[in-house]
Amino acid sequence: MRRRINFDMEMKAHKQANTKHAHLQGNLIIVGFGSVGQALLSLLFQNIEIRSDQVRIITADEHGSEIASKFSVSFTPHSLTEENYLAVLEPWLDEGDFLLNLAVDVSSLALMELCWRRGALYLDTCIEPWAGGYVDRSVSPSLRSNYALREQALAFAREKQEGPTALLSHGANPGLASTFAKQALLNIAADTGMAVKKPTNSCEWAQLAYQLNIKAIHIAERDTQAASQRKQPNEFVNTWSVDGFVGEGLQPSELGWGTHERHWPVDGAHHGFGCDAAIYLNRPGASTRARSWTPLGGPYHGFLITHNESISIADHLTLREKGEVIYRPTVHYAYLPCDDAVLSVHELAGRNWQIQAKKRILRDELVEGTDELGVLLMGHAKCAYWYGSRLSIGEARRLARFNSATSLQVVAGILAGMIWALQNPRSGVVEPEAIDHELVLEVAKPYLGELVGIYSDWTPLQDRGWLFDEDVDREDPWQFKNVRVT
Amino acid sequence: MRRRINFDMEMKAHKQANTKHAHLQGNLIIVGFGSVGQALLSLLFQNIEIRSDQVRIITADEHGSEIASKFSVSFTPHSLTEENYLAVLEPWLDEGDFLLNLAVDVSSLALMELCWRRGALYLDTCIEPWAGGYVDRSVSPSLRSNYALREQALAFAREKQEGPTALLSHGANPGLASTFAKQALLNIAADTGMAVKKPTNSCEWAQLAYQLNIKAIHIAERDTQAASQRKQPNEFVNTWSVDGFVGEGLQPSELGWGTHERHWPVDGAHHGFGCDAAIYLNRPGASTRARSWTPLGGPYHGFLITHNESISIADHLTLREKGEVIYRPTVHYAYLPCDDAVLSVHELAGRNWQIQAKKRILRDELVEGTDELGVLLMGHAKCAYWYGSRLSIGEARRLARFNSATSLQVVAGILAGMIWALQNPRSGVVEPEAIDHELVLEVAKPYLGELVGIYSDWTPLQDRGWLFDEDVDREDPWQFKNVRVT
Repeated sequence: MRRRINFDMEMKAHKQANTKHAHLQGNLIIVGFGSVGQALLSLLFQNIEIRSDQVRIITADEHGSEIASKFSVSFTPHSLTEENYLAVLEPWLDEGDFLLNLAVDVSSLALMELCWRRGALYLDTCIEPWAGGYVDRSVSPSLRSNYALREQALAFAREKQEGPTALLSHGANPGLASTFAKQALLNIAADTGMAVKKPTNSCEWAQLAYQLNIKAIHIAERDTQAASQRKQPNEFVNTWSVDGFVGEGLQPSELGWGTHERHWPVDGAHHGFGCDAAIYLNRPGASTRARSWTPLGGPYHGFLITHNESISIADHLTLREKGEVIYRPTVHYAYLPCDDAVLSVHELAGRNWQIQAKKRILRDELVEGTDELGVLLMGHAKCAYWYGSRLSIGEARRLARFNSATSLQVVAGILAGMIWALQNPRSGVVEPEAIDHELVLEVAKPYLGELVGIYSDWTPLQDRGWLFDEDVDREDPWQFKNVRVT
Repeated sequence: MRRRINFDMEMKAHKQANTKHAHLQGNLIIVGFGSVGQALLSLLFQNIEIRSDQVRIITADEHGSEIASKFSVSFTPHSLTEENYLAVLEPWLDEGDFLLNLAVDVSSLALMELCWRRGALYLDTCIEPWAGGYVDRSVSPSLRSNYALREQALAFAREKQEGPTALLSHGANPGLASTFAKQALLNIAADTGMAVKKPTNSCEWAQLAYQLNIKAIHIAERDTQAASQRKQPNEFVNTWSVDGFVGEGLQPSELGWGTHERHWPVDGAHHGFGCDAAIYLNRPGASTRARSWTPLGGPYHGFLITHNESISIADHLTLREKGEVIYRPTVHYAYLPCDDAVLSVHELAGRNWQIQAKKRILRDELVEGTDELGVLLMGHAKCAYWYGSRLSIGEARRLARFNSATSLQVVAGILAGMIWALQNPRSGVVEPEAIDHELVLEVAKPYLGELVGIYSDWTPLQDRGWLFDEDVDREDPWQFKNVRVT
């Protein structure tokens, strides 16, 4: 019986594999080839009509060269810097080409500008600064934030709404999270008997969220994957990029700031420029914890790590009347990474954020676990609703080579984003919230394991204060004050 | 070569094993037979002249019955309560008998009073309330504290200075920690060229600590022991009692409060009764973290779990002039338990302190790691000095059966305390600080692995503020404000 199920799954994946959603004529330049790049290759060729000789990987070191060579893909170890990136990349980029930025420490803005100038398509999975940008003490925390990086990208985008498509931040989260949020809104509407037409723009999505009384949205993720070999002292272990995770973890904690919030965080600050949809806390996200909930894991404390979707979802779901903001949900990440990463963060905090000497990314050595990645929408008539992907390491391996559950979820988002960009090549600079979420779901779904939506009566006030008095707002469970762990 | 070292170690242990330090004529009633009780038996017979038919174990469940039977010791599963303990225990207690309280959820005060009345000797490893006492929401956090439990014991003790000996809280910590602190004071004095005579009472020890300018003392422990089988979801894993750890972890965080402190914690409170050597924070210790340092591990964040020694060391090192307190160090625990326990605490916090369904105590399945348990004395001329035990799981197993490094350190303290009590059977109710630390070290040392003293230039200001501004007191590194993780 089990064999039969596996077989059906393989057939499904195989069928999916033969559905080419788009065609790429030019070069595909992949910048960065860490865990996500390595995870992408097999599915790239299954989903997009492209030959291996069109693909060129440019990455900082030799990691993954053997995987590139399995797919007969050109592989150039070359560390990109502000000084050399034009000379290295420009020759490969022209109209019809596609630059996929999967690197850390390479400026998304610089690469996006280059692509724009050359007429090439562009996609990244987060908005990165040049090396050191996340921990550049010479600038304020506000300027090391994702908010600032996004505002720079939006400033660039402002007058470029019809050029070559550049899709910002389209992995799992940021990326799929925005699609999950849209689908969750539609599902809650349907399940609460609200007749709605599918919204066609951000204003209409915001209107829907407002009508449903969504007060807070968490990107609620719990990763239970584990390897046999435990984390060792002075080692940072993760199921995806260590440098990527540490980088974002050392940025200020950031969250979209909802209109229902009535308790200002003591360490909170507005940026004083840009859309003002989000605020930051004057401390690293890796030291900031938030209460959240997932269906399999139940209530948990997650790290309130900054992510682009915390800002972009909040911004896109902002409703204005006569220029005044009348509605916005609070939006943030509540990330419970794999156990070894939790321990790595604890150790890193103890070292006052001086990164460990050893780094290890878990993939082939993983023996168990599931990445439960979704959005938790709260405040509506049915209390809380989690919608997202439950992907086990076993199923991830059956679906695609060189993957963990975590990397496959990211790859699903990248593929969906690339295909949308290829189908919509003249859309200018866009964010995940602006694209067709049904296409994204269609492409991504086969790689997400179980895609489920589950209601819960969980609130951040559940089981609070039984042992010690706690300073909570009992009138409104969905206040950030109740969610934050202090 | 390795074989030779092992052989030498075994010989040393064997030689030690044949040095009987004391003789017990009457019954030894052991109440509670969890990880520590099970760990004790083999060393008990090696160190104390006693026959197995003198020993009677009374414990809540069947755990460990096979170990008791290996040593031909009577084993009665019987859960002691406030209602039944007199009927169960009294028949076994008379002059010349010894009650060793290793249970959780059995009142230390009740057993101590019983022993006093019967003329029996008494020792426990912490001052426990009856079941539920640590989480009894009907009383204030102050009354759920170790401070309150200790004050009750001291009130009982006040007019009983010459009756049968009852040694309070003499395991590793509390227990050995007080001896480590004394030896550390002597070592620092010697190493800084201060000529001192060995103090003979608390006032003289306090004088020495004052002269050395000791501002803070951490019980700085880092346990790196690990098993192959990782912690599973909804499971609490530890290298010693899960119930014991969770119990103390849910008590208020407590610390001896030094006279140099000039920043009052926002959640801090005086008890308003008793010696006033310690304060509590109005939150569970398991949710409170402190910066500390150990020689092998370096800087780390430990849990500021309440422990009796935090209060008793601070109290005994309090110096008064004309009734006014002129000196006291800040004293507290900074516990980094084994990785699986760190994860267990993180999960428990996410569950709002509703204990996990599954519990697992690691012992025979441990495959690696060391328990580094010592005291860190700070503020003196040589900055910081750690003195304590580094015991690996491998060495613990070579030294005694049915042990982990953690349980063996506790057993070493218990044995030393029992032997001191047997040698000093008419000393009334005493705390670890009041007994002969040289005897304690002599008995315990063979079971502590490496006993080392190491200086460090670490302070809690090291590497602070490089990434975000932090509210620290740069004028005095040893302020608790700098130590606490917020």
